[in-house]
Amino acid sequence: MARYLVTGSAGFIGSAVARRLIESGNEVITIDNLSTGHKEIIPKGVTFIHGNCQDISVIEKLYTSRLEAIVHIAGQSSGEISFDDPVYDLQTNAQSTLLLLKLAQKIGCKKFVYASSMSVYGEQPDRPTAEDAITLPKSFYAVGKIASENYLRIFSQFGITTTSLRLFNVYGPGQNMENLRQGMVSIFLAQAINQKHIHVKGSKDRYRDLVYIEDVVDAFLRSLDRVDNEFNVLNVATGIKTTVEKLILKICQYLPFKPTMEYSGSTPGDQFGIYGDSIKILQVLGWKPRYSLDDGLRAMVEWALQNK
Amino acid sequence: MARYLVTGSAGFIGSAVARRLIESGNEVITIDNLSTGHKEIIPKGVTFIHGNCQDISVIEKLYTSRLEAIVHIAGQSSGEISFDDPVYDLQTNAQSTLLLLKLAQKIGCKKFVYASSMSVYGEQPDRPTAEDAITLPKSFYAVGKIASENYLRIFSQFGITTTSLRLFNVYGPGQNMENLRQGMVSIFLAQAINQKHIHVKGSKDRYRDLVYIEDVVDAFLRSLDRVDNEFNVLNVATGIKTTVEKLILKICQYLPFKPTMEYSGSTPGDQFGIYGDSIKILQVLGWKPRYSLDDGLRAMVEWALQNK
Repeated sequence: MARYLVTGSAGFIGSAVARRLIESGNEVITIDNLSTGHKEIIPKGVTFIHGNCQDISVIEKLYTSRLEAIVHIAGQSSGEISFDDPVYDLQTNAQSTLLLLKLAQKIGCKKFVYASSMSVYGEQPDRPTAEDAITLPKSFYAVGKIASENYLRIFSQFGITTTSLRLFNVYGPGQNMENLRQGMVSIFLAQAINQKHIHVKGSKDRYRDLVYIEDVVDAFLRSLDRVDNEFNVLNVATGIKTTVEKLILKICQYLPFKPTMEYSGSTPGDQFGIYGDSIKILQVLGWKPRYSLDDGLRAMVEWALQNK
Repeated sequence: MARYLVTGSAGFIGSAVARRLIESGNEVITIDNLSTGHKEIIPKGVTFIHGNCQDISVIEKLYTSRLEAIVHIAGQSSGEISFDDPVYDLQTNAQSTLLLLKLAQKIGCKKFVYASSMSVYGEQPDRPTAEDAITLPKSFYAVGKIASENYLRIFSQFGITTTSLRLFNVYGPGQNMENLRQGMVSIFLAQAINQKHIHVKGSKDRYRDLVYIEDVVDAFLRSLDRVDNEFNVLNVATGIKTTVEKLILKICQYLPFKPTMEYSGSTPGDQFGIYGDSIKILQVLGWKPRYSLDDGLRAMVEWALQNK
C-alpha cells in the first residue's frame, strides 16, 4: 500500500487510473478543477482537492505529503478547444506539469507519469509513427504537451523516473458523452444516441489508433513500476489504423437503430491520420493491448445505452 | 519606411536590430521590462513601452497599431538562470510569443520573426547540427523556445509568414558585460578585464558556434523580407566549431595583459558541444556570416576595453 497523487480523477482517464489504484489497496489523492470533470466520477475513497494544478497555492497543499508517485492526467484535453484560449491551455497543460515536477523534487517523490498525447506528432507519413518522429504540433494543446514532456526530461536529471505516455485515441465506458468537442468515439456515439444522426466534421478517410480505457490504465500502472531514474516517452497505441468510416460502421453495428450520417466542415488543429508504432512500449513496459476494437466498442455502446 | 515592433530593444540583440531598422528610415516600437536590459541602450528614436510581453495589458496597447512586422527578441536569455524560476521562464519565453502572435493575427500583421536558440537541440552528435535534428532541451529556457517555435508553426496557418532564428552563440560589441551568467564570450571577457582571472565552469573541450552580432542582425533583416506565409526555422550559425580553450586563447591574444585561468564546476543545463549546419539559411535567406572570429573578437575586445 502506498499513496499516489492522480490529478484529474474527475475525468475519464484519471478516474479509471485512480479506481484501479484504490482497488489494489492504495491511497489516492486527486486535484481536479471540475472544469469538464464531475465530482461524482471521482472514485470512492479518493481524497479530493478542488483546484487547478497550475496554481501554486493548490500545489502547496501537498508540500508535506509523502507520495510514491505522481500521475499527472488533469488538463484541458481537446486540441479543438485549445484554440479558444491558448494562454489557458499553456497554463493547464504545461505550467501544471512544471509545478508538479517541482513538487516531486521537493518532497522526494521518485516517480512521475504523464498523460501526453499522439497530437504531438501532427501530420506524419502513412505508417506507424514511432516515438522518435519529429513533433509537428497542430494545436495549442499539443504545444503544451510537448513542453511538459521536455520538463519531464529535465527532471529525470534530478533522480526522478519520468514516463510520458503518448495516448492515442482513448475510448471506453466512462468517457464524457456530453462534451461534443473531445473524444472521437464518444462524440460519434453521443450524437448517434441523442440525435440518431452523426455529423462528421472532416473526411471519412481520416484514421486513428483506438485504445481501450482498460488497456490505457494498464500502461499507467506498468509505468509506475519503472525505477531507472530516466525519462522515457512511450506510445500507448495498438498499431492498428482505423478509418473514421470504419469506426462509424462498427459503432452502428452495435446500436439497436440506424443513425443518419452527414459529412461536412472540419476541426481546427485536427490531424488527418495517425496511428502508433507500439514496439517500444512492449519492450520497455511489456505492454500490449488486450482488448480488440470490437470488444471495446461493444462494451462502450452497451454502457452508453444504459447510461443515457 | 514602415513601422516595426522589436521587443527587447534594451538588450544586446534587440537594440542592434532596432538600430539598423531606424538607420534605414523605419519607425520602431519596443516593449522591454528592463529586467536585464538598460533604458540607455534603446536606440534613439525608438518608441519605448515599459512592460512584460507576457502581460496582456501591455500587448493591448498595440491593438490599434499597424505593424509591418513583429520581431520578438525579449525574454530571459540564459539557460542557467531559467533554473531559478522555471514558471517565469515559461511565461517570458513562451506565453509572450503566444500573445504577440495573437496580436499579429488581430491587427493583420503578416510577418513575425522570433529569436530562438541553439539550446533547443541539447546534446547532439559531434557534427554540424541541422534544423531537422530532434530537439532535446536541457534547460527550462530551451523548453520555452521550443514551445514558441511551435506557436509560430500554428500561426503560419493563419497567413502569417513566421521565421524562427535559432541563434548560436552571439557575441560582439554591445553585449551585456555585467551579467556573468549569460553569454559565453562576454562572461570570459568581463572576468578577464575586471579580475584578470577567467573562471571556466565546465570543460575546456566544450565547443560552440560563435556568431558576430552584425551577422545576426543581417539574418533578422533578411527574415523580414520573407513573404511565403509559411513557417521556417533557421540556424544562425557559422558552421565552425570553436572550443572553449581556443576561444579563451583568442580573447587573450587581443588583450594587453595575460589573465590567470581556472577550470572548475559546471553550469546547469549547459550543452557540452554544439555547432550548426548553416546550409538552410543560405538557401532560404541567402545569408552567410561576413565576420571571421578573429575580426569579431578583436572588435569586441577593443569595445570592451574602451567601455570598462
